[in-house]
Amino acid sequence: MQRRSNRSRLGILGGGQLARMCLAPATALAVDVTVLCRDFDDPAAKAWADVMIGSPDDPDAVAAVAHRCEVVTFDHELVDTSIIRALEQRGYRFAPSAAVLTVAQSKVQQRQQFDVLGLPIPPYVVLEAGTGASEISSFAARHGWPLMLKADRGGYDGRGVWRVNDLAVAESIVTELHNRNTAVVLEEVMPLDIELAILVARRWNGELATYPLVETLQVDGMLRSLRAPAQVSQRLLRQAADIAREIASAVEVVGLLAVEFFVSREGLLVNEIATRPHNSGHYTIEGAATSQFEQHIRAVLDLPLGGTGLNAPHVATVNVIGAISPKGRAAALSVPGAHLHLYGKPPRPGRKLGHVTVTGDSREEVMRSATFAALALEQE
Amino acid sequence: MQRRSNRSRLGILGGGQLARMCLAPATALAVDVTVLCRDFDDPAAKAWADVMIGSPDDPDAVAAVAHRCEVVTFDHELVDTSIIRALEQRGYRFAPSAAVLTVAQSKVQQRQQFDVLGLPIPPYVVLEAGTGASEISSFAARHGWPLMLKADRGGYDGRGVWRVNDLAVAESIVTELHNRNTAVVLEEVMPLDIELAILVARRWNGELATYPLVETLQVDGMLRSLRAPAQVSQRLLRQAADIAREIASAVEVVGLLAVEFFVSREGLLVNEIATRPHNSGHYTIEGAATSQFEQHIRAVLDLPLGGTGLNAPHVATVNVIGAISPKGRAAALSVPGAHLHLYGKPPRPGRKLGHVTVTGDSREEVMRSATFAALALEQE
Repeated sequence: MQRRSNRSRLGILGGGQLARMCLAPATALAVDVTVLCRDFDDPAAKAWADVMIGSPDDPDAVAAVAHRCEVVTFDHELVDTSIIRALEQRGYRFAPSAAVLTVAQSKVQQRQQFDVLGLPIPPYVVLEAGTGASEISSFAARHGWPLMLKADRGGYDGRGVWRVNDLAVAESIVTELHNRNTAVVLEEVMPLDIELAILVARRWNGELATYPLVETLQVDGMLRSLRAPAQVSQRLLRQAADIAREIASAVEVVGLLAVEFFVSREGLLVNEIATRPHNSGHYTIEGAATSQFEQHIRAVLDLPLGGTGLNAPHVATVNVIGAISPKGRAAALSVPGAHLHLYGKPPRPGRKLGHVTVTGDSREEVMRSATFAALALEQE
Repeated sequence: MQRRSNRSRLGILGGGQLARMCLAPATALAVDVTVLCRDFDDPAAKAWADVMIGSPDDPDAVAAVAHRCEVVTFDHELVDTSIIRALEQRGYRFAPSAAVLTVAQSKVQQRQQFDVLGLPIPPYVVLEAGTGASEISSFAARHGWPLMLKADRGGYDGRGVWRVNDLAVAESIVTELHNRNTAVVLEEVMPLDIELAILVARRWNGELATYPLVETLQVDGMLRSLRAPAQVSQRLLRQAADIAREIASAVEVVGLLAVEFFVSREGLLVNEIATRPHNSGHYTIEGAATSQFEQHIRAVLDLPLGGTGLNAPHVATVNVIGAISPKGRAAALSVPGAHLHLYGKPPRPGRKLGHVTVTGDSREEVMRSATFAALALEQE
């Protein structure tokens, strides 16, 4: 059976903005790519030659991509891992693997993995089906209200997360989620205004490349802006890089891993991970020696990893959310140093439509310019 | 008649590497692009969704692209300007215009334009049909042998150019070119090892943005490598920028203009121009605030022009010529700081297949690294 007609072809499941931003480095490196998109209006489908139409949940569509490609990677984690696992057993290669995706998809498994590794995490308890009021009461007695409820699976950008102030509300959400067959993580409320995040790339052979730690500003559970590098102590910088490398090696991710942290008085607490290029790494396109998208391609194709240093003392990236006005693009392009990245998605309230990056010598100025350009884009 | 179904769609005639390298910024700016390619194996066709197959010399194909687009630009100048002019008369917009392309395609018209502007150029004479031995002898008597012969039209990358040592050879080449209905430029031999080049962008409204002057190293008439910025006197830097702006404004180019210079004892002499992104500007992808490809798109769509400053004290770009080995890519990627751009073209001796750019603090180191990576790629 001839499985690999072209050894250097890369498959990508999903045609969102992360796939779209992989296309420029794939072109520069002359890497052949097949993208599985839901339709021809997907952000990546609008900007690429070799597109297959299908769902990442359709075993035949995924098999068709895998059959053409040396290795298959992902635009997002929301894929059916049983499909991936079955294809792995037939010899097809996925990066990250089904085993890694299974952890990445589950807040419960992530926390259990962090526990096993002895990493610092917020106090939490898992509410499996059959548990409820008494476990919540007991946790609240120790940690106080309000508390956070997080669906084990399927949440992103603030979805699947609830801040609750009393037992009755908490119990109704937990019951509802249990009815949908998802476990729930109950945890302390962490300060959410500033988080830290770090990216690490890992090749098949275990080689790692760690990017600088960045500060992310979350609004409504969605990344609004980020600054690189994070201005925190050497101790926290080291701790973040050590934790990221430890997780990447322990789960044996291939490709990029993003780790998000809370900052507590005792130091960093691991919030969650993503096993792909990540919004907190968009700044690397202009801001780092190797963009996260190129690095991801290098890692999954087992090519040498690139440098991860910053190209300037300070980098700021601001997301464009909800709307892009027709005149906004010209206004944003007139902001000196503003690099626009638009995802080609129809506007919708709360939807990430693009981002703006600015590099420079002043921490304040790069954020001011990036914010100004992003707001210009959003202006109706 | 509804000519512009989508006001922001850009057409590109030709699917070579210059069109290919326009695709990343087009994606980032969410500019819809239609590329007219000869076939689906063209460098741009391999990396883009919206491709039309046809020849830039086929009036119907060009009209079909123009009909879809707000403005049409070019991968190369080798198009039939009578087709472009006829479509302009019907209201379609091309950038640059047929009038500009007519000058850019002709070494004779370029020189005549430079003469009109009073710009410094090498001594030359135009040999029209019916002239020959006596004009050559008379020019040689004043300037000595060897001399350069250049076909008025159709030459590039060292083609269409001959260095001749005596009258018999010169006369035979001139006769042959006259038989092919092309005039010939006869000129003094200029020092060809190091040339200087500069890029300027011009919008429809006349706004200009001038890039730094660069040094280019020519081998066999083809650009082999370049360094930015050129290490020459302030006087030459100013002279080059002034000349580039003067030509851009005089010919009313829309988009990018590249000007190549010889360096003589008296100062700069204009060699020739190109009215599109240019090999001497590939360094701008990583090396300048705005890549020449993004700048070209901004200019032809009449969007605000971006900054043109260098991102690092020194930038070197080295072309990859003739061959790319399978192992070469990994070897080149392991060179710290090497940014690869491969054009997806089949290898052929003497053919430009890609380039490598390195930025940094040391003029020597960036050139060494870029050369090392380019040679690694070429290694069989």
